[in-house]
Amino acid sequence: MSGDLGPRVAIWAAEKFVAEKRNCDIWLFGDEGQLKSIYKNSRDPYHQINIVHCTEKVSMDDNPLHVIRHKKSSSMYQSLLALARGEVDAAVSAGNTGALLVMSKHLIETISGIERPAICKSMPVREGQTFMLDLGANINCTPEQLHQFALMASILVDPEKNADQLARVGLLNIGTEHAKGTELLQAAQELFMQEIRFSYAGFIEANQIFSGDLDVIACDGFHGNIALKASEGTARFIGEKIQSAFQGNFLRKLSLLLLWPILRTLRQSLDPAVYNGAILLGLKKPVIKSHGDADKKAFLQAIRVAHEQVLLDIPQKISSCLH
Amino acid sequence: MSGDLGPRVAIWAAEKFVAEKRNCDIWLFGDEGQLKSIYKNSRDPYHQINIVHCTEKVSMDDNPLHVIRHKKSSSMYQSLLALARGEVDAAVSAGNTGALLVMSKHLIETISGIERPAICKSMPVREGQTFMLDLGANINCTPEQLHQFALMASILVDPEKNADQLARVGLLNIGTEHAKGTELLQAAQELFMQEIRFSYAGFIEANQIFSGDLDVIACDGFHGNIALKASEGTARFIGEKIQSAFQGNFLRKLSLLLLWPILRTLRQSLDPAVYNGAILLGLKKPVIKSHGDADKKAFLQAIRVAHEQVLLDIPQKISSCLH
Repeated sequence: MSGDLGPRVAIWAAEKFVAEKRNCDIWLFGDEGQLKSIYKNSRDPYHQINIVHCTEKVSMDDNPLHVIRHKKSSSMYQSLLALARGEVDAAVSAGNTGALLVMSKHLIETISGIERPAICKSMPVREGQTFMLDLGANINCTPEQLHQFALMASILVDPEKNADQLARVGLLNIGTEHAKGTELLQAAQELFMQEIRFSYAGFIEANQIFSGDLDVIACDGFHGNIALKASEGTARFIGEKIQSAFQGNFLRKLSLLLLWPILRTLRQSLDPAVYNGAILLGLKKPVIKSHGDADKKAFLQAIRVAHEQVLLDIPQKISSCLH
Repeated sequence: MSGDLGPRVAIWAAEKFVAEKRNCDIWLFGDEGQLKSIYKNSRDPYHQINIVHCTEKVSMDDNPLHVIRHKKSSSMYQSLLALARGEVDAAVSAGNTGALLVMSKHLIETISGIERPAICKSMPVREGQTFMLDLGANINCTPEQLHQFALMASILVDPEKNADQLARVGLLNIGTEHAKGTELLQAAQELFMQEIRFSYAGFIEANQIFSGDLDVIACDGFHGNIALKASEGTARFIGEKIQSAFQGNFLRKLSLLLLWPILRTLRQSLDPAVYNGAILLGLKKPVIKSHGDADKKAFLQAIRVAHEQVLLDIPQKISSCLH
């Protein structure tokens, strides 16, 4: 209900998703009247989409601690309650991140042995993908929590344990030398070096995030959030510069036409929609956070991430790895 | 002596600079034999360039605390000593940042009232420029230090006090709401709100760095370094994607030719060389840190930044503002 573009994005994505996956159902939590005015029976011939009426919604400014007490009829709370009760297998939201986190911790709970869930996202990198976490759930983290984050993400890298190599894990710092950074990072480094379930690749700097040399980058939520948003801001800034470079005279505008196939290649390889859907990793069941301004395609990608988490049974695999 | 591309970059930049500024001298500190083999008398017809022989150099891996005791004959130490003694008016280095900082604090000292120098850089933004600091000198900062950083940079924005408006200052955080972030940022916010020498614009997120809405962005060195390097990494990553999008068939390569003027516009507006030269702000005299991999043009820009700091007498202006 509370993504920047409203529920029509989620409904379009749900319709596309059920057309792809005949063995899946989607439950839409929200204002029934509003949802029904957008939802088309014709696009759901097998009745895979259900609407659960909710009288409230969590807004982007709502205080997380307030909503958990006073907005139990909200679409966010009700969807997570359905997940907790096993009525659905995963939840996806483009709403208030803080509220989603607090409600998820309360209703879904963390896997035994995991102190806190982390926001984990697949980043666009030179080749393959790199999971980065935490991207904003935890301002401060202990060395043990950073270690738990890395371990959880290393399971995402190779859930079926098919690969010969262990996941390569880096720890975000402001230099690559052993002695760099805070005492906390020094202590975390000790834990990472002792770990045999993943391969610790050392401290990394933020300019190495996109190198593709790592499978996992662990950091606290403050640092991860700054790195993620600085990257998003840079990409948008360059995008605007590219657009304005094509403005001006007729020839420049004409060359834009010529360039169409090239720009399409470029856009596809950087499209944020391809990377939408952050996992609240460490919860007993999959909860996926879509970017607030996700468009239809991006929201569909977030649903696919949720589906994959269920198919791969990631929470169970994390639990087995820990015990 | 210890920039990634060696002394020839600095010598070329020095030659260009003295050709531009007939009333300036450049002193080159380093291995005389090596420098003289590159330096051409013909490009310095008025003998504005002097070479000061130094028997050692600080390497990129040298421990800052080690070099300050044991590398007093190094080019870096000797150049800063000449600055301390008033033999030169500013110093520029592309070498080891940590060593430059420690030596500068020791030999040049901070302005009275300033606890620590900060690395401050002009960032490429939508319109105008934004000074961001600290970019890596101080891992942890007190609220008072963050406030000093902001105040110093606000003087850079308008050293002659010509503008009608006060400098707009933002504080880097992971959300824009008042209650967001660490206790330390909450305390810093209180100090910033009370300041009348600049206009506090509130917390900002890292995706707003390039918006051009701010004149100054204050942060601790850890957060600033992550934001800066994440941006650099993103820009390089997108640059590579653009290059590879033009590869493949003949038509794509041909279109690169057509696009040359547009790509040049784009490159100029994003060229890191235009933004090279970070100021170690808060020292009694100007010390400028060039990017280690600066090319000739970028190093020239770092010299220009040093020259401007001297002309505008920034350390004196900061001192007057404080007392």
